[in-house]
Amino acid sequence: MTGFIEENLSPAQIEQAEALYGPFTQRVRDLVDAAIRTEVDDDVIREVDEQLEKIVARLQERQREGSFGLRHNGETVTRAWGNAVIGLRNALAPPLDVHRDDEGRAFADFTLGAAYEGPPGLVHGGIVSLILDHTVGMVAGSRGKPRMTAYITVKYHQPTPLGDLRVEAWVDRVEGYKTFAVGHIIGPDGVTAEAEGLFIQPRWARD
Amino acid sequence: MTGFIEENLSPAQIEQAEALYGPFTQRVRDLVDAAIRTEVDDDVIREVDEQLEKIVARLQERQREGSFGLRHNGETVTRAWGNAVIGLRNALAPPLDVHRDDEGRAFADFTLGAAYEGPPGLVHGGIVSLILDHTVGMVAGSRGKPRMTAYITVKYHQPTPLGDLRVEAWVDRVEGYKTFAVGHIIGPDGVTAEAEGLFIQPRWARD
Repeated sequence: MTGFIEENLSPAQIEQAEALYGPFTQRVRDLVDAAIRTEVDDDVIREVDEQLEKIVARLQERQREGSFGLRHNGETVTRAWGNAVIGLRNALAPPLDVHRDDEGRAFADFTLGAAYEGPPGLVHGGIVSLILDHTVGMVAGSRGKPRMTAYITVKYHQPTPLGDLRVEAWVDRVEGYKTFAVGHIIGPDGVTAEAEGLFIQPRWARD
Repeated sequence: MTGFIEENLSPAQIEQAEALYGPFTQRVRDLVDAAIRTEVDDDVIREVDEQLEKIVARLQERQREGSFGLRHNGETVTRAWGNAVIGLRNALAPPLDVHRDDEGRAFADFTLGAAYEGPPGLVHGGIVSLILDHTVGMVAGSRGKPRMTAYITVKYHQPTPLGDLRVEAWVDRVEGYKTFAVGHIIGPDGVTAEAEGLFIQPRWARD
C-alpha cells in the first residue's frame, strides 16, 4: 500500500499547514457552491473560466501523483486530509468534524448546502449513506484493530432537508471477530435515517 | 415543494447552457483535484486564494437562493443539474452519465479521482454507497410512478480502487407496492460491492 506516507511534521508545521489549507479549501467549497447557484451573464462565466484555467495550471505545476493518501507521524498523528468526508484539503468533504464522548460514541454537527442535493431541497439519499458509512465505520474500527466493512444497511424514515444536521454513531455489540455498529442522522424534525453495519476483523489482524 | 421549477427552455437554449456550464463545472472539478494534490509553495496558495475570493464574489453577485432544485420543461425534459451524483453544474458529481438498455437496466462508466478517496488509494466506502444508491434508486423509480427508498443494503466484497469503474443496476422483482432493485460496482478485478434496495410506492401515488 503506497498511500501511507510518513512525513514526521512537527506539531507547529501541522498547525501551519492547517492554517493555510483549511481556509483555502473552504474557498474552493464556496466556489463549488457558487458555480451551482450563480445566475450571472454567460460572458462572466466564460471570463471566470479563463481565470480558473490559469489557477489550475499554476497549482498543477508541482503536484503529487495520484491521491493524497494518509500522512502520519510514526504511530501517533494521522492526517487524512484527502478524505471524501473529513478531508481538510478535500472540497467535496463538508468536512465532518467528528468528536468522541467518554463512552466512545461519535458525533458531529455539520451543514450540507446546495452541492449535496438529491431531490429538490433535500439531501441526496446517497449522501446520507456516505455520512453514515463514515461515522459508523469509524466507531467500529477505532478500538486499535483494523475492521473491514462487510455490509451496511441504511433505513430511510423521512427526507433529510439541506441545512444543519447531526450524525451520531456507536458500537451496538461485539461478537468475536464481528463488530456491529449503528448510527443515525438527525434533522430539524428528528431522526431521518439510521444505519447498521457489520465490521469484521480480518484474519491477518487476529491474535 | 419549492424546488420544482418550470423554465420551459427551448432545446437550443438547453444545448447552449450545457455547452457553457459543462466545461466550466469540469474546470471547478479540476480545481478541487488540484487543491488536494498540489505541492506548490505556500505563497502561491495564498495568492491563488485571493484570486479565488474575487471569483467567488463575482459569481455570487447574482445567484439563486438555496439549492439548484429540479428544472423542467412542462412534463418532458428535466434538468437535475445540481444533483450530487449526476449534476452537470455540480463539481462534487463525477458526474455519472447513466445509460439504459432495452430491458431497463442502467449502467454508467465513470472515473473517480483523488477527491473520492477513503483508505489510501481506494474509493471511500460511502462513495461506493452513494453511486449505488443513485443508480439503484433510479431503476426502481423509473416506471412512471414515484418510489420512496425504504432501505438500501450495500455488501462490500473487495476494496474499490480509485480509477475507472462501472456501475450496473436493475429491478430484481416487484411485489405489489414494493420494488426490489439491485446493482453492483465493477472494478479492474471484478465486482467490488453490491447493493439491494427496497423502494415503496407512497400511498398518495397509488391508484
